Amino acid sequence: MDSVWLNAAFYQASRVVGNTGKNPPVGCIIVKNNQVIGIGHTSLNGRPHAEENALKMAGNDALGSTMYISLEPCCLDDNLNSCTNQIVKSGVKKVVIGMLDYNKLTLKKGFRRLIKSGVETKLLPLDFENFLFNYSQYAYHVLKRPQITVKLATSADSKITYSNGSSKWITSKLARKHVHQVRSNYDAILVGKNTFMQDDPSLTVRIEGYKKSINRVLLDTSLSLKINSKLLKTLKYNPLIIFTKKKLKSKQSEYLISKGVKIYQVKTLSNGLLCISSVIKILHRLKIRNVLVEGGAITASSFLNSECCDFMYIYKSKTFIGNEGLHAFGKLNEQKKFSLYNELCLKDNKLEIWINNKINKIYKKLV
Amino acid sequence: MDSVWLNAAFYQASRVVGNTGKNPPVGCIIVKNNQVIGIGHTSLNGRPHAEENALKMAGNDALGSTMYISLEPCCLDDNLNSCTNQIVKSGVKKVVIGMLDYNKLTLKKGFRRLIKSGVETKLLPLDFENFLFNYSQYAYHVLKRPQITVKLATSADSKITYSNGSSKWITSKLARKHVHQVRSNYDAILVGKNTFMQDDPSLTVRIEGYKKSINRVLLDTSLSLKINSKLLKTLKYNPLIIFTKKKLKSKQSEYLISKGVKIYQVKTLSNGLLCISSVIKILHRLKIRNVLVEGGAITASSFLNSECCDFMYIYKSKTFIGNEGLHAFGKLNEQKKFSLYNELCLKDNKLEIWINNKINKIYKKLV
Repeated sequence: MDSVWLNAAFYQASRVVGNTGKNPPVGCIIVKNNQVIGIGHTSLNGRPHAEENALKMAGNDALGSTMYISLEPCCLDDNLNSCTNQIVKSGVKKVVIGMLDYNKLTLKKGFRRLIKSGVETKLLPLDFENFLFNYSQYAYHVLKRPQITVKLATSADSKITYSNGSSKWITSKLARKHVHQVRSNYDAILVGKNTFMQDDPSLTVRIEGYKKSINRVLLDTSLSLKINSKLLKTLKYNPLIIFTKKKLKSKQSEYLISKGVKIYQVKTLSNGLLCISSVIKILHRLKIRNVLVEGGAITASSFLNSECCDFMYIYKSKTFIGNEGLHAFGKLNEQKKFSLYNELCLKDNKLEIWINNKINKIYKKLV
Repeated sequence: MDSVWLNAAFYQASRVVGNTGKNPPVGCIIVKNNQVIGIGHTSLNGRPHAEENALKMAGNDALGSTMYISLEPCCLDDNLNSCTNQIVKSGVKKVVIGMLDYNKLTLKKGFRRLIKSGVETKLLPLDFENFLFNYSQYAYHVLKRPQITVKLATSADSKITYSNGSSKWITSKLARKHVHQVRSNYDAILVGKNTFMQDDPSLTVRIEGYKKSINRVLLDTSLSLKINSKLLKTLKYNPLIIFTKKKLKSKQSEYLISKGVKIYQVKTLSNGLLCISSVIKILHRLKIRNVLVEGGAITASSFLNSECCDFMYIYKSKTFIGNEGLHAFGKLNEQKKFSLYNELCLKDNKLEIWINNKINKIYKKLV
């Protein structure tokens, strides 16, 4: 039964992905006599944590109960009110944990303190799915970078424009709608210059009845963003971060900063493109936990070549365009090996979810 | 129950696909008192037909039985021994047919003569799968051409060579083995010049314990096939047909003809490539019922552009190569719309089976 209840905890966590600020999305279920007496997930923007929310619901009933948590409870030396202490205080008898928290400030501390305090504590064998769920927490704390997902919308033969160069509507309305669902799980959307110059996107999450602000990140070497672009018009609820090359001073820059845009100057590589590692370091410093890279071909390839593309979401139509369309990827410095993790049918389009084989290797080391 | 027994008849037919010479592969099941008393399929190279084989097995028991046939039985004016007559003579009480035979020499004649002779005759509603099974018969007689399947082996991003131009082993050993299974269903394999010059293939069916001769067809504008090529070494069991441009005379040509190679000269198009419609007409005249086009990119595109590519079999690896690899297709004169009919997992490769949307339209007209 433990793994069934734990799954329920993961389900709670999944409800808040993309909305927990600097904290990881965590889910918690408290069970007593085979009945759920407490449910919780990380609050919007991070606090209170899932455990605290579930304990609040359970109240005094928590005494003698079993708690299921998707991630090890926090246990910070400088916080007497951290979740581990609250669990001990509540009289919970047994705690089942989905995965250790690789934040080194708390790693294994929660687990050990629970045991030391006489709570029966169990770390379930790590499922691959559960690992993937917590992967952004792992990447953030161990790899010191956000989780990176490259999203592409291509023809059946991996082209992102038609033969005549037009890139509008290669995938269906339903597929484009689904992208907003995916965006809602991310802290930030990133695009390269060609994409935002050609398409004038707003890069917001547009789901009826659902409000979410999302960071938009531009790779804009020459700071060419237009003043009347949708990206600036939607600035009120959705921050804008621009990476540009060093030693660039312009009135444009001053104007953008005055509007609240954050501008970072990073070094360029020999090919004239911005250094992705530098971009990623800054995004990590800004406490962005995961980034959806939405193209185009050169930007997608830059992330693949920088060895930090974790997932790819490829929306595919069922038409073949031929060699005159623009290929979904630019030059790759070597063949990139991924596993096809899932396929989703979206009427006459489909979504392929690919996982970098390196993630499989990390997982195998952990278990 | 009728459709269950009919499926069994189709299964019998499927056992001989690619081995029935100028005749279509047909399966037949004779049932009496819910017991199978006769099983038959088209004989190797075509004769005797499935019905005759099944009737022979049933013997006198056929009297009062029900016969299931995947295709309408033949009924030729000049052949008193055609299947329809044999069925009537045998005393079969009821006949269930999977699809009409679109060979106009016999179309609806078998069906009508059975009824006229007092046999209860039923044409089941045509399943899409059953239509696909008999599609080469339809194409051969109505479209006046062989069924054409384009087969490709690509990376996950539709490339058929690596960045350095090498094309060896993009797909796995298992995928390459599976190709032989597919080849065994075809009358002919066709490749363009680049493919047979670069790879020196033998284009034979190599399945342990299974012997099958297959026509090899080359598009070889300048008649550049090498004397020591594997294609010539395997000539004994596998005929070779070469299409070349008009007014080409050479010693090479005389030598090849003396070895038994058939050479056809066809016109070239403005792009210097052989006219595919002319090639297809000759293949049809040679009574080839289906052709597996095995590349390369230019040949595949020529068939797509000539509007006579019915199916695509795309074997895919799970690596991404980027824009420097050769694209699976050359220039396409418009976007080509297909449906993804099936996907087969071949360990870490997969096979995608695509159907030209035009086939769906033909099917809808028939039913």
